[in-house]
Amino acid sequence: MAQPLNLSIEGMHCGGCVNRVTNALKKLEGVRVVDVQVGAAQLELESATAQACVEAVNKLGFTAREA
Amino acid sequence: MAQPLNLSIEGMHCGGCVNRVTNALKKLEGVRVVDVQVGAAQLELESATAQACVEAVNKLGFTAREA
Repeated sequence: MAQPLNLSIEGMHCGGCVNRVTNALKKLEGVRVVDVQVGAAQLELESATAQACVEAVNKLGFTAREA
Repeated sequence: MAQPLNLSIEGMHCGGCVNRVTNALKKLEGVRVVDVQVGAAQLELESATAQACVEAVNKLGFTAREA
C-alpha cells in the first residue's frame, strides 16, 4: 500500500522552483507526486524510499526534510 | 589569461534560482563568477571549460547555453 510522505523544502520561491522539484520527483520510480507547492511536496511512496526523494530534491540545491 | 563566458539560462525566475545557480558555479574549480542574474550568468574561465559550466547549471534543472 502506498505510504504518504510530506517533505518541507527550503529554498523554493517561485513557479520555476516548483517545476524543477516536481520534474525531479516525477522521474523517480515508485513515487506518486500528489502536490508540490512553494516550500512543500506531498507524495505517495509506492516502492521508493523517503531518503531517495529527499536526495533528489537536495541535488537541485534545495534543502528537503520529512515534515 | 581568463576567458569571458556568458551563459543564457532558461528556467530562472527568482532569487532562489539565482542563489542555486551562483552556488553551483562557485563550486567549480577554475571559474570566477562575475555576475548571475535571472536568466544569465557572466563568468570568467581560468582553467574550467564552458561545457563544465553548462553542465553544472543543467544538473540543477535549468537549461544553459553560451550566449
